[in-house]
Amino acid sequence: MKKGYRILVVGGLAAGPSAATKAKRINPDAEVILFEKSDYISYGICEIPYYLTGEYRDKNNLVVYSPKRLAKEKGVTVRIKSKAEEIQTAKKSVTVRDMKSGRTRTERYDRLIIATGSRPKMLPFEGSDCKNFFTIKSLQSAYRLRDYLSRHNPRNAVVIGGGYIGLEMTETLRKIGCTVTLIHRHKYPFTGLDKNAGEKIVQELETNDIYFVPHTEVTGFETRGKEFITAVATSSRSFPADIVICAIGVTPSTEFAATAEIQTGPFNGIITDEKQRTNLENVYAAGDCCELRNIVSGKSALFPLATVASKTGRVAGENAAGGDALFNGTVKNVAVRLFELEISRIGLTMAEAKETGFKPIKETITAYSRVAGMPDSARLTVTLVADKANGRLLGGSLVGPDGAAHRGNILAALLRLGRTISDLSDLDLMYAPPFSPLWDPLLIAANQSGKKIRGRHD
Amino acid sequence: MKKGYRILVVGGLAAGPSAATKAKRINPDAEVILFEKSDYISYGICEIPYYLTGEYRDKNNLVVYSPKRLAKEKGVTVRIKSKAEEIQTAKKSVTVRDMKSGRTRTERYDRLIIATGSRPKMLPFEGSDCKNFFTIKSLQSAYRLRDYLSRHNPRNAVVIGGGYIGLEMTETLRKIGCTVTLIHRHKYPFTGLDKNAGEKIVQELETNDIYFVPHTEVTGFETRGKEFITAVATSSRSFPADIVICAIGVTPSTEFAATAEIQTGPFNGIITDEKQRTNLENVYAAGDCCELRNIVSGKSALFPLATVASKTGRVAGENAAGGDALFNGTVKNVAVRLFELEISRIGLTMAEAKETGFKPIKETITAYSRVAGMPDSARLTVTLVADKANGRLLGGSLVGPDGAAHRGNILAALLRLGRTISDLSDLDLMYAPPFSPLWDPLLIAANQSGKKIRGRHD
Repeated sequence: MKKGYRILVVGGLAAGPSAATKAKRINPDAEVILFEKSDYISYGICEIPYYLTGEYRDKNNLVVYSPKRLAKEKGVTVRIKSKAEEIQTAKKSVTVRDMKSGRTRTERYDRLIIATGSRPKMLPFEGSDCKNFFTIKSLQSAYRLRDYLSRHNPRNAVVIGGGYIGLEMTETLRKIGCTVTLIHRHKYPFTGLDKNAGEKIVQELETNDIYFVPHTEVTGFETRGKEFITAVATSSRSFPADIVICAIGVTPSTEFAATAEIQTGPFNGIITDEKQRTNLENVYAAGDCCELRNIVSGKSALFPLATVASKTGRVAGENAAGGDALFNGTVKNVAVRLFELEISRIGLTMAEAKETGFKPIKETITAYSRVAGMPDSARLTVTLVADKANGRLLGGSLVGPDGAAHRGNILAALLRLGRTISDLSDLDLMYAPPFSPLWDPLLIAANQSGKKIRGRHD
Repeated sequence: MKKGYRILVVGGLAAGPSAATKAKRINPDAEVILFEKSDYISYGICEIPYYLTGEYRDKNNLVVYSPKRLAKEKGVTVRIKSKAEEIQTAKKSVTVRDMKSGRTRTERYDRLIIATGSRPKMLPFEGSDCKNFFTIKSLQSAYRLRDYLSRHNPRNAVVIGGGYIGLEMTETLRKIGCTVTLIHRHKYPFTGLDKNAGEKIVQELETNDIYFVPHTEVTGFETRGKEFITAVATSSRSFPADIVICAIGVTPSTEFAATAEIQTGPFNGIITDEKQRTNLENVYAAGDCCELRNIVSGKSALFPLATVASKTGRVAGENAAGGDALFNGTVKNVAVRLFELEISRIGLTMAEAKETGFKPIKETITAYSRVAGMPDSARLTVTLVADKANGRLLGGSLVGPDGAAHRGNILAALLRLGRTISDLSDLDLMYAPPFSPLWDPLLIAANQSGKKIRGRHD
């Protein structure tokens, strides 16, 4: 590749820095420039809940790479406060606005990588710009939240949305002393779990004095002087609130991509091929702004996860720099801690499996996480979803105080490789009393599922 | 199958009860009789170290199924104190000696399952029958050891052999207050580990005031009145001993099988096919007394593990009862806790890989088990062994205070499925600060190994 080759990367959170770093490593002669509209790049979104409780101690305030460090150690030119606004495909250039001066300039590219990420979904009510309303999606909001908590010492917290971020923030707010109400649309948090698993989570919330409000939609906010929310109105009743966390999901940020004719999919994410190429020549995309292939269903979906952002970023960066890397999709694998409980969900839920066109069966068992009688051994609820037609594993969940998250990884491995319940039964899982019983809960679940698939009851 | 069909099972520890139970379930009309020469069946050998410290609390004194309970709940006839001594293949019968009366009787079989297990290897020195010499292989010896410890309150303990049982007993004896010397033939305990992992284990022993004596062979025992060992003599020096634990491995118990022309292999274990059939018609074998296929090397080996015994027992039982089950081999997956350390070894070591004929590479990395800065996050040393020719994963080990054992299971899954380092790199492992960093140590190890395989240094 010739000198003066320019690779522009738009977006500095997870996929962007991965892409830029990889591109520079693959092609050290290229000029790699990363544009980020905010003040920060490369930080730990997922650590925010633990940063707020003080459990996570970090001298760098969540920042993994400062712009300076990324430049120095990785050779990437970083431009913060620089908002990429428009693509000119014919000229192979991008218009970038300097957020301080307000001026724009045009930047030529040989290759462009779009890593504009996602943004929190919002509720269409007045009050969402109040000083005590927060989403958990950027370092700015984390800092603002930390300041608000220390200055106002709020008592009543309302968390909207019982997904994993909602659950994490519920734990965080409770741990710092708030009275927490968690409002959720469905019956159980972490939608898609089996009844037994769902009940266990609700139990854990109750044990920790969380007021869990299921089957409920938010209908508006009551405010004081339009500056502070004072209550959250819902389909059932109104909940007083000194602070509100909204965690109802994210949506891809594709305004920048939309300035060119970049193809998006049914979930509004950018469509790419296995090399993370968009439909436009020389334009790549990575991270939360993309739709990606769900390996289990074979269909497009959103995977707003840091791991996926990093991986697709690497692939986009390598290919943009002239390399040849593939990203062939992902298996959803989400783990969350809720007080003393580990919750893990992998692959497709029963509903997703049906929707995809499988004829799924579901089996739930509860077994001890270690040899019963050993300290820390605890009951683990395992659900497996499999295709009745051929026994193929489609998904699963694990909920319990011990050993749920790491066991989920084993299911993720089998799901990526397209393997069956019978393959799971055959695994040579370790047995040592301090770690696992003779028959690991996963093996028990697999054996029971196998009987259901074969229609046998021995 | 006709009524009066008789399935005899010889051996009552792990494989035997599994086989008998499964056989009865598959063919409820069959008469299934289990013979065990000692007083006990179906007990938890692996729990012995934790039973001795009191960490494992068990009202049944390690017994999983009493003879009575196995009979009542599973319909298996159990004869304890009954030593099967000889097979008459022509007559399809077995001679069984009643250990109380000394009398023998002949039992006819339609199918015979040999599950005679293994016995501890012994040192060829006088003193091995002393009252303070112990092996960890039977419930009798566990009870005798427990009594000895409480009665004599020994001060100086010498453990011979640094395999997983030796390490577990080292921890146990230290925890109950002994001064412990651990004598091992090789440089590091748990032979076959990488240098970094080995050093970590030695460090953990030292931290816990264990006197670890590497590169040393036992040459004899000094005794007092032939009743008590007083010191263990070695190739370097002599170590005073109030109690001696010998844990230098096990050897298949095949005396019973040898009374007929049952084929054994290079490790003195019974050879079976995938249905756990021996070379003799209607005779099956399962558990420690068998040689089994190492799935990674494709070769025969001994796997004296409770998990393997249970699985082969089930297969032998199902097939003996007219079913059709397969056991196609195993992946070695051993995990042990040593004080604050988790040690896990899976598949082939570097030496075993070479011996098998692979051209292996080895890569060791150290990375945090959870997000660095989170409580309980600790440095984990991961070694992967892979075939340079095609990237196939051959084995690995994990050593660290947190998250080693469960991560080992992921390697065991890939090894069983014959997958590569690249497959490991692709896995969708969960990322949540309380459980795992963004890049799981396994992924970091896989990425580094991949570079070594490709000869790249990016």
